[in-house]
Amino acid sequence: MYGTAVAVFLVILVAALQGSGPPESPFPYRVPLDPEGSLELSWNVSYTQETVYFQLLVRELKAGVLFGMSNRGELENADLVVLWTDGDSAYFGDAWSDEQGRIHLDSQQDYQLLQARRTPEGLCLLFKRPFGTCDPKDYLIEDGTVHLVYGVLEEPFGSLEAINTSGLQIGLQRVQLLKPNISIPALPSDLLTMEIRAPDVLIPGKKTTYWCHITELPEGFSRHHIVMAFYYPEEAGLAFGGAGSSRFLRLEVHYHNPLEIQGRRDSSGLRLYYTATLRRFDAGIMELGLVYTPLMAIPPQETAFVLTGYCTDKCTQMALPPSGIRIFASQLHTHLTGRKVVTVLARNGQEREIVNRDDHYSPHFQEIRMLKKVVSVHPGDVLITSCTYNTGDRDLATVGGFGILEEMCVNYVHYYPRTQLELCKSAVDAGFLRKYFHTVNRFNAEEVCTCPQASVPEQFASVPWNSFSRDMLKAVYGFAPISVHCNKSTAVRFPGEWDLQPLPKITSKLEEPTPRCPASRGQSPTSPTVVSIGGSRS
Amino acid sequence: MYGTAVAVFLVILVAALQGSGPPESPFPYRVPLDPEGSLELSWNVSYTQETVYFQLLVRELKAGVLFGMSNRGELENADLVVLWTDGDSAYFGDAWSDEQGRIHLDSQQDYQLLQARRTPEGLCLLFKRPFGTCDPKDYLIEDGTVHLVYGVLEEPFGSLEAINTSGLQIGLQRVQLLKPNISIPALPSDLLTMEIRAPDVLIPGKKTTYWCHITELPEGFSRHHIVMAFYYPEEAGLAFGGAGSSRFLRLEVHYHNPLEIQGRRDSSGLRLYYTATLRRFDAGIMELGLVYTPLMAIPPQETAFVLTGYCTDKCTQMALPPSGIRIFASQLHTHLTGRKVVTVLARNGQEREIVNRDDHYSPHFQEIRMLKKVVSVHPGDVLITSCTYNTGDRDLATVGGFGILEEMCVNYVHYYPRTQLELCKSAVDAGFLRKYFHTVNRFNAEEVCTCPQASVPEQFASVPWNSFSRDMLKAVYGFAPISVHCNKSTAVRFPGEWDLQPLPKITSKLEEPTPRCPASRGQSPTSPTVVSIGGSRS
Repeated sequence: MYGTAVAVFLVILVAALQGSGPPESPFPYRVPLDPEGSLELSWNVSYTQETVYFQLLVRELKAGVLFGMSNRGELENADLVVLWTDGDSAYFGDAWSDEQGRIHLDSQQDYQLLQARRTPEGLCLLFKRPFGTCDPKDYLIEDGTVHLVYGVLEEPFGSLEAINTSGLQIGLQRVQLLKPNISIPALPSDLLTMEIRAPDVLIPGKKTTYWCHITELPEGFSRHHIVMAFYYPEEAGLAFGGAGSSRFLRLEVHYHNPLEIQGRRDSSGLRLYYTATLRRFDAGIMELGLVYTPLMAIPPQETAFVLTGYCTDKCTQMALPPSGIRIFASQLHTHLTGRKVVTVLARNGQEREIVNRDDHYSPHFQEIRMLKKVVSVHPGDVLITSCTYNTGDRDLATVGGFGILEEMCVNYVHYYPRTQLELCKSAVDAGFLRKYFHTVNRFNAEEVCTCPQASVPEQFASVPWNSFSRDMLKAVYGFAPISVHCNKSTAVRFPGEWDLQPLPKITSKLEEPTPRCPASRGQSPTSPTVVSIGGSRS
Repeated sequence: MYGTAVAVFLVILVAALQGSGPPESPFPYRVPLDPEGSLELSWNVSYTQETVYFQLLVRELKAGVLFGMSNRGELENADLVVLWTDGDSAYFGDAWSDEQGRIHLDSQQDYQLLQARRTPEGLCLLFKRPFGTCDPKDYLIEDGTVHLVYGVLEEPFGSLEAINTSGLQIGLQRVQLLKPNISIPALPSDLLTMEIRAPDVLIPGKKTTYWCHITELPEGFSRHHIVMAFYYPEEAGLAFGGAGSSRFLRLEVHYHNPLEIQGRRDSSGLRLYYTATLRRFDAGIMELGLVYTPLMAIPPQETAFVLTGYCTDKCTQMALPPSGIRIFASQLHTHLTGRKVVTVLARNGQEREIVNRDDHYSPHFQEIRMLKKVVSVHPGDVLITSCTYNTGDRDLATVGGFGILEEMCVNYVHYYPRTQLELCKSAVDAGFLRKYFHTVNRFNAEEVCTCPQASVPEQFASVPWNSFSRDMLKAVYGFAPISVHCNKSTAVRFPGEWDLQPLPKITSKLEEPTPRCPASRGQSPTSPTVVSIGGSRS
């Protein structure tokens, strides 16, 4: 019945580019939304306008699409644009979904349709949205991961409110929407490439395989700088080859084969872009955050429990050169329960700047990200890395460790000039944690096994979790002295006393930025845009 | 030089009442802003429009006025309207002040000028503002106390930004802006009055005097109902006189004489409005919150420390009639460090409704307030009263108690029908607080005096306050069993076990309401209104 109307769903140009269009290179970033790539998003960011320009390509248009953003990729409490038809007309509207996934029109239309046109590839919708809208129903577009959501409307709906999201083909895609606005450094004219690949490996038919392959650099291979894995800054490169450096390169591929498929082969790997013209600085990688130890644990049934690791003033004082280092990229890392990660730089007890932050972090989307702004770290500075975990689906404490069901809180920072400091992390003092178990015992009628032979994971497993044992654990982590790992790449600590160190004192915190309301708000429409349909319904 | 311009500062009508004007009785509420009453505010509330209509009378206009609202009456971080002149023109604008008290024009003009006119009494400005504006710089008008601020501009300023608030005559006034929208009950035709006054008392020349005066009801004075001190609901009155009731009335006047002035006399008192036609229900007063005990303490240097007192399900089960009681008015009470007070009703572990709430509570502004909506409390319900304290200017713990430098957390609720339950409060169990002192001792190298002969205030005074002793105190108050005072008016407990009671379990909390953005936002101007000056500058 609706077949014809849907078939002739012909969308025409509704609006010329209003005011200032998107920047020069129209849409430098692109990602498929669904596994088949039938919905494809391209976008660009205008930092001066604080606006994202979206181009959504719908290869096979049915009766419409939903597209938007939500906290962690759910279609409930999402901020949406909806293109839908009631069979006669087609509409484009800014909408939101409630806790039950019901869709409502936004009182303020902050997604602004700029163009809708047929192309040989499909329907192409061009629209824009400010980072922040000051509408409490809207998603605030921030640095870090953004969870994009989509849905395909197979048939017309009488109204926006009539759309039932539970019956739709839906999905999510994770992207860093606010890509940093940095120019790509010029590549050297003598750029060389080297490929390191898995040699047609037969992927084992089991869930998880860590596969390692060692290759050897040619005899007499001199010192070179890798300049592109991601783009290194013009003044730095990652050194390899030459005297004092290993001639062996190890490629490690992690195969995740949940269906345990047999017989698949793989030749994936890396291509190194490097140069013999050494740059001014060697780049290095440093690990910040928490030591991998069960001393740091998250109670079960917590939706936002925070653990914090410190790189102390004493360690940076000892290990960094007088002129400091410059961090230019960062990779955040947790295991399955990680939800947010942030590293803050503090100086003289005052928080100064964010090194990297992801309030929508997902362990399923770990990238090395260039920083919007290079961060200088000086001797005596403190780097504080905090991770927020959700253990709502767990019944026992989650302790720190290497296992996928244990947790980590790590920020791998890329910086130059390279130093001997490879690891600057902390964990609570073990003696104070023993006092914790003792106190919990005292307040909870002796249910905790504090017998000396019990391991820390065993003791955590026997804690009766309630508001007291949880709040007290927070109090201990927020007060007790720490053991600091201030280690060289040889896994040896820098000389000095690193146990029972005081927690860094922070007297002033960075203020949360107030989202700015778009200045042009008064101009945007307050009702959906009629997109208009050519053709007739028969 | 500016004299003439200021003298002829003649403001004319700028705008007719736009759209829907203020409700019938234009401005039922009125308050002087400054001690001399040269600025007077009248207002009305439209709950359908979620808008407050203001009428500001400026008796002696100089070069302009500031008026607005802020968290606690400071002129920093305030939400302001400013009427100012640059010597030539006059302007009305929505502005805000930053942390340093500098004034900025708001990007969105949410105060809307409706009328400005000369009257025999002075300049009369009529303007309106929605409760919430969704502008992060704006104050959200909520139930409870609102701190109004004002400033007098003595001379013209070249621009809004040039106004220096530090040189102005400024002040604050506290009001309940959102008066409940309830109709005044009809008064009985046989209404009688009785005055109870201080008999021309000579006020002692000292800072604080509690003065008591006993009067006696006439012999044979039968049972009557007081119906207006504030207005009682039509179906209830406060009983006095008759058999089983004391014939003595005590008037207690608290004189605060900070300058220790000698020789002043006073005859202030109360006028009771009462009737012999008894209403259906006797009204009662019940005290909710915390027991007055040093067991409940607030660490020093805290800006928002919360203490909570419980009226438990066991007590309401025992003391309330099967049909429950109806609370119609409430008076919140703390001493000097109280900043917020709220009482929530919970049923079956779920928070159901707010009984009364003041997020801008001031101990200097304690009123009996009619509730917007009568709250029914049934046997088995829990009433949870939480107070937030600011001890930022104190160096020692503030313990609970009667002294003005000690603290209280109380909600006196007025209800009917009267029951025997006069007091339903709680405090932490003393044994668990001893465990607290012991643990703090253990974590802090034995600095706390836990010797058995030390009193609780002495032990609190010796606690080394740090994040651990503070967080641990919160954890204990949030976990330890409580001692419940479920008392009759005779100060006798209801029968039963009231010590070592479990804290009420709350599994679902009330959601914080999301402020609604005004629908008409698009219509409001984005720049100040030129008010225009008649006359010339010479």
